[in-house]
Amino acid sequence: MSNGAAAAEVVITPEGFRTHWQGHRRLTRRVIEAFPEDQLFSYQVGGMRPFGVMVLELLSMAAPTVRGVATGQWDHDMDRSVRPKAELLAAWDRDTVEIDRNWPALTGKFQEQMTIYGEYTDLLCNLLLYIIDNEIHHRAQGYVYLRALGIEPPPFYVRD
Amino acid sequence: MSNGAAAAEVVITPEGFRTHWQGHRRLTRRVIEAFPEDQLFSYQVGGMRPFGVMVLELLSMAAPTVRGVATGQWDHDMDRSVRPKAELLAAWDRDTVEIDRNWPALTGKFQEQMTIYGEYTDLLCNLLLYIIDNEIHHRAQGYVYLRALGIEPPPFYVRD
Repeated sequence: MSNGAAAAEVVITPEGFRTHWQGHRRLTRRVIEAFPEDQLFSYQVGGMRPFGVMVLELLSMAAPTVRGVATGQWDHDMDRSVRPKAELLAAWDRDTVEIDRNWPALTGKFQEQMTIYGEYTDLLCNLLLYIIDNEIHHRAQGYVYLRALGIEPPPFYVRD
Repeated sequence: MSNGAAAAEVVITPEGFRTHWQGHRRLTRRVIEAFPEDQLFSYQVGGMRPFGVMVLELLSMAAPTVRGVATGQWDHDMDRSVRPKAELLAAWDRDTVEIDRNWPALTGKFQEQMTIYGEYTDLLCNLLLYIIDNEIHHRAQGYVYLRALGIEPPPFYVRD
């Protein structure tokens, strides 16, 4: 029994995990907001993609994956064209609400091995961590872009 | 009972969490390795810290926190002076082994509220996630520095 109990230890609850992610999403939203409109899809460092293009990638991964697991509808194709910052923020906010709405349907599945988009196979917890980590990774690149543009980014540790 | 069962759902196991973190640590190690020795403590973008200084910060947080929780010995003061890349890598490897050694002592504590370094209070799972997220954040800034230096960084998705 002691092995079984150890194996079943809760590191983080589904609600704690949702809260953790939504805290990151609030910070990422602030980084998008801080970005100058005229640099969002043009400024870059070292040949990397502009921050707006990275944000479109993040949008194509987060809510679509949670929706896919919750409903079985897999679709992360999306229009990747340049758009005003207000449209990125509106999409971000819409997806934040959709993630919350679909989250309860993930109950019981976090330790389930699954394949998403017919391509990536792992435990659901790891697939979601990858999406969050990818958000942190590209947001941090946005931090460097902001600094290089002379703009102070929002503090990393503020998540509310 | 159903509420209780939902609250107790395992999102990720302690071993899965350790594996996730060590995968990130392997990637961060490769980014340190890819950095040119002569730029590690001097090159920067937008007035930010050099990557070597960020790595010293990461070293001051990871193994010392796991050690603190495991043993009650809290100490993350460390020499922050410039040093050769080989010394950073040796410290990184030593800490990787120490984290693994101390990890079993974290059993049963991930959902425990605690204060680390007499300063930061949260559930242990959140404190550890913060440390991992901070590693991803600064490593991603290292990616931009590498690209700006004309060096291709290691792929983000490779963690073995």
